Amino acid sequence: MAIVGLGLIGGSLALAARARGLVGEVVGVGRGRANLEAGLACGAADRVEQDLAAGVTGADLVVLAVPVAAMEPIARRLAEILAPGVIVTDVGSVKRSVVRPVEEALGTRARFVGGHPIAGTERSGVAHSFPELFEGRRCILTPTERTDGDALARVRALWEGVGMEVAEMDPDRHDSVLAMVSHLPHLVAFALLLAVDEREAAGEDCLSFSAGGLADFTRVAGSDPVMWRDIFLANTDQVLAALDRYRAELDRLAGWMREGRGDDIAGALARSRELRSRLEELRGARRDDG
Amino acid sequence: MAIVGLGLIGGSLALAARARGLVGEVVGVGRGRANLEAGLACGAADRVEQDLAAGVTGADLVVLAVPVAAMEPIARRLAEILAPGVIVTDVGSVKRSVVRPVEEALGTRARFVGGHPIAGTERSGVAHSFPELFEGRRCILTPTERTDGDALARVRALWEGVGMEVAEMDPDRHDSVLAMVSHLPHLVAFALLLAVDEREAAGEDCLSFSAGGLADFTRVAGSDPVMWRDIFLANTDQVLAALDRYRAELDRLAGWMREGRGDDIAGALARSRELRSRLEELRGARRDDG
Repeated sequence: MAIVGLGLIGGSLALAARARGLVGEVVGVGRGRANLEAGLACGAADRVEQDLAAGVTGADLVVLAVPVAAMEPIARRLAEILAPGVIVTDVGSVKRSVVRPVEEALGTRARFVGGHPIAGTERSGVAHSFPELFEGRRCILTPTERTDGDALARVRALWEGVGMEVAEMDPDRHDSVLAMVSHLPHLVAFALLLAVDEREAAGEDCLSFSAGGLADFTRVAGSDPVMWRDIFLANTDQVLAALDRYRAELDRLAGWMREGRGDDIAGALARSRELRSRLEELRGARRDDG
Repeated sequence: MAIVGLGLIGGSLALAARARGLVGEVVGVGRGRANLEAGLACGAADRVEQDLAAGVTGADLVVLAVPVAAMEPIARRLAEILAPGVIVTDVGSVKRSVVRPVEEALGTRARFVGGHPIAGTERSGVAHSFPELFEGRRCILTPTERTDGDALARVRALWEGVGMEVAEMDPDRHDSVLAMVSHLPHLVAFALLLAVDEREAAGEDCLSFSAGGLADFTRVAGSDPVMWRDIFLANTDQVLAALDRYRAELDRLAGWMREGRGDDIAGALARSRELRSRLEELRGARRDDG
């Protein structure tokens, strides 16, 4: 298995797959020497290569774990390098802007399966890798009419092997769902901190009076800015659509506040609280199953 | 000390103050018999009373820990009951709509000090009380030109005694700061869950694909709907002002996404991440001090 882009996800996949005996040699491929050395040091790779061709030679599975904007260019280079029939999959957080272009770029040279293991922490980098990252979490695979059935089964077995519950859906639906439950929450958290920052920049001390709420729910705002820039740019339509729905809810609550409609406000907050409980149950159940 | 409204805050204050020997007998006053029994059972009160007059007789300090909308009506009744010179303070999350009306209601009968211990969890109710709730957290007192100096010192000593760092500011500034760092974050979380709920209600399974992000940062949305309804209605102007600033940040990010301005997006996200680090440091430092 070759992992192109040895970060938190790639490194954790390597650790988990090796711990469970799912793969033979793991080769880490990346541009930064220091990062590759860190990957070797934490056991996330048996061998590391800065050169893509040297890294993927002999691999029967290539995992693309680079930022989403880099997927297609790398696929173009792989098309010139790979032995026929190699399976290529990716871990990108958006799928429409990745799956078709990568399929086109690889042509018939490799068997591509789009994927997204929904796991991660706010800490990026291979040094934070750990093999339990995927346990009890969900992975979405996004096969198309061009996807090879054996390749799909192989990639599914890999993610199930490291503890994930695997679902399949088309790339558009993936992007729509993730826009709502992941991309929008990140956008909302980033914007909230920027609004607080504006007040702080104006010399007002707000931050030091914040309670647990702000810190908890801005944990996601500690995520990597470049990765999130790429996600927002790669899934703009769906994120903006989710943002519109969200803004409609904000507008409604604001209107009720202006009009003093207490019952409507309390009713909406109670509904929100219920959903939060359902979410807790879902996550608890998944952890137990995993 | 009499605590009117024996919930998480009132109960935890009683436990903490008694553990540190800061008060003598603690009387819990409330309407619900079951809740008062729970308070007795967990040691949050020596004695409980459903009748306000019976509860506050003999107290030299009365703590109002009821929902903010109930503060003024209770103060009117206290004005007819209290012995002269008793100190009255409150723990309300908004201050402008509480401090002046309560001062007016009490008149010269009692010495009032507005206060807000910034502490809490998403679990409400006296049964969740614990004495460490206030340690290392901040408390804001909002004295006015009518506030008695000795009463202010006594209330400050109480909150410092249970481990809080006490600041003083005028009620308007309190409401403006808290709107930004507490009320707006709650509104944002409620609205986000309502937007997800709308998708779920339309039969789309979103929730089960959510990652840690959504759950973490909607923890606050598990808070008590009635308490938050009251806060939003009592601090509408400031919350709407904070919401406007926040919306401006959302609009700016959305515009950049539409125009594909990656550098601007990445720059903003990096700023947001820095602020988040500062917040973590602040909270870490306060915990160490506490």
